[in-house]
Amino acid sequence: MDRLCIHTATTRPLSLDLALEVYAEAGVTGITVWRDALAGRDPQTAGRRIASAGLAPVSLCRGGFFVSPEEAVRKRAILDNETALREAAEIGAPLVVLVCGADTAVPLPAARDQIAAGIQSLLPLAEDLNVKLAIEPLHPMYADTRSAVNTMRSANDLCERIAHPMVGVAVDVYHLWWDPELESEIARCGDRVLAFHVCDWRSPTRDLLTDRGLMGEGCIPIRRIRSWVEATGFDGFIEVEIFSTEYWAQDQRSYVDRIVSAYREHV
Amino acid sequence: MDRLCIHTATTRPLSLDLALEVYAEAGVTGITVWRDALAGRDPQTAGRRIASAGLAPVSLCRGGFFVSPEEAVRKRAILDNETALREAAEIGAPLVVLVCGADTAVPLPAARDQIAAGIQSLLPLAEDLNVKLAIEPLHPMYADTRSAVNTMRSANDLCERIAHPMVGVAVDVYHLWWDPELESEIARCGDRVLAFHVCDWRSPTRDLLTDRGLMGEGCIPIRRIRSWVEATGFDGFIEVEIFSTEYWAQDQRSYVDRIVSAYREHV
Repeated sequence: MDRLCIHTATTRPLSLDLALEVYAEAGVTGITVWRDALAGRDPQTAGRRIASAGLAPVSLCRGGFFVSPEEAVRKRAILDNETALREAAEIGAPLVVLVCGADTAVPLPAARDQIAAGIQSLLPLAEDLNVKLAIEPLHPMYADTRSAVNTMRSANDLCERIAHPMVGVAVDVYHLWWDPELESEIARCGDRVLAFHVCDWRSPTRDLLTDRGLMGEGCIPIRRIRSWVEATGFDGFIEVEIFSTEYWAQDQRSYVDRIVSAYREHV
Repeated sequence: MDRLCIHTATTRPLSLDLALEVYAEAGVTGITVWRDALAGRDPQTAGRRIASAGLAPVSLCRGGFFVSPEEAVRKRAILDNETALREAAEIGAPLVVLVCGADTAVPLPAARDQIAAGIQSLLPLAEDLNVKLAIEPLHPMYADTRSAVNTMRSANDLCERIAHPMVGVAVDVYHLWWDPELESEIARCGDRVLAFHVCDWRSPTRDLLTDRGLMGEGCIPIRRIRSWVEATGFDGFIEVEIFSTEYWAQDQRSYVDRIVSAYREHV
């Protein structure tokens, strides 16, 4: 239990305060804060609430979205990522997770160039604040509008291109489980693994965005992937990130109990 | 126009006879026959109808589905693939396209072993009939139940493992467009490219199976991918394969005219 973290987006109907209460009662020890959960709040105060609830602020979700055909939009994205880095520092989180972005008007190779440039421009502030940046490769079904980085190989290539100790990777089983190269590319990633996200792939999947399953409900070999991640030396939190209209409609206290059981049994 | 082929599944509401009439009137010169369009018909008679309509039978779709935890099911799949090979020969098609299969109860590496074994067992009949087998890598979002082969690299690895002149690859832009390795893996494929399928990726995509777009309606760089395919020496048919509840609900004659225009403009 000392490694179990839940994303606020997993229990989206709960306010941050209620999430803290429910997670703590269930014995969860880490929280990843989505920026919508901070909306209208002072991040430092939120950080103190997290600490006094006894939870570790694992990361802030999410920065990124560096890709656009318009330079002005890309510049605004950088400013917004700088805000995210400051918010992360204020709540005490050591990491911002990046959904790197994609745009149907930008060819994928150019999109990857824009992503590299965007991350590079954030490095001085990331260093100043001591907040790392995790590139999260997203499932190829999101290559049109969410991320032009869709495999561990591609994320590793990007890390090596940027070559900076503040930049690493978030490994999410949902996006990557199908890849025959996953084991070798996680090994290649080494100590650049900064985060590990779990959930499951429902079969059939009824929606491209909001039909993720609880661990054990799908076909992802979560334990095997966890063993690959831990073979790199990673011993950080295991983060439950589930977007599900089905689960969001249920009682969130019982749902968190189910998450804890699924974590014990299938992760 | 002498390279334009349409899949019967693209105009699913049309019977084979009607499809032949509509395609021929629109100037389409090739047809890929899905097995449901042959149901209850004698394949040799269907082959004569195709020939007398002036269309080339480009391929039969689809064989495969080699993966199951049960040996009896795998054996039945082989028999069914043998039937597909015979049907292809009878309608005069030189190729059977393989959707290789996947099963949530079979880990992906084992699934790939079953696929290799399944294809190998078909080789003697494929040689006898002179009908080739095309491994079609499917988008990773189908890795749970449709195919454990989800990239060109994986399809190339499988071809090299089987190493037989009757086995190659079907390149479908819908499944592969997002892959940073696509250009180099198509080049690696070389003269193993046996088929080229086009459509487009709609953004947003509203359904995992039946929301493909007409060429030009989405974000796939079809012309660029076509240039990579043709750089291998491929000069066969360009096959329009679109599964779309939206288009199936429309008048199929006008739809075929739109396909012809989209082909001229965007392929």
